[in-house]
Amino acid sequence: MPFIKTDQLPGKTVIEGYEARTLHTGSMTLVYWSVQAGAVMPMHNHIHVQVAQVLQGQFMLTVNGATQTMVPGQIAVIPSNTKHGGVAITDCLLLDVFTPERDDYKF
Amino acid sequence: MPFIKTDQLPGKTVIEGYEARTLHTGSMTLVYWSVQAGAVMPMHNHIHVQVAQVLQGQFMLTVNGATQTMVPGQIAVIPSNTKHGGVAITDCLLLDVFTPERDDYKF
Repeated sequence: MPFIKTDQLPGKTVIEGYEARTLHTGSMTLVYWSVQAGAVMPMHNHIHVQVAQVLQGQFMLTVNGATQTMVPGQIAVIPSNTKHGGVAITDCLLLDVFTPERDDYKF
Repeated sequence: MPFIKTDQLPGKTVIEGYEARTLHTGSMTLVYWSVQAGAVMPMHNHIHVQVAQVLQGQFMLTVNGATQTMVPGQIAVIPSNTKHGGVAITDCLLLDVFTPERDDYKF
């Protein structure tokens, strides 16, 4: 069946306060993050191109030295190998889309 | 700047009742659709792999003969060259993610 509830995707707490639910299509990975208020995603980078967005709540994101508090209706484009990280201002639900697939998020 | 409001992305009414706002990353295309209640997306297919979701509202989607009324929290995975189409039950905001890029949605 093509239809899936995102809270039934395979899940894992990747770092403290960040529970990931992931979908892999062969050419991209979608990650639905349930994040606890105050939880910190340390600065990091990877080869994958990433589009980040907030589906619910508020998340303060830093990309390549620029910082913005994101709310639904905003997205951030994170090029390959670009430093980024952030902190959840509230409990929030985030969606990250990556190409190519993230093999490290296959659980 | 990496941060973008989705309602400021390039937009076009692709078919009646379907306004698209698009982002292209080189390896994928994201389309934010503002859809009017009752508007019909005729059955069609394309080479691109697509992940469809409803951000707001309700949308009845048919994929390869299976039909479901989608609400936020559900996604549909549409493989390459698979027939799909639908109708908006309410005004809704949809997000489709495609790989590879959709050149026909560059406006």
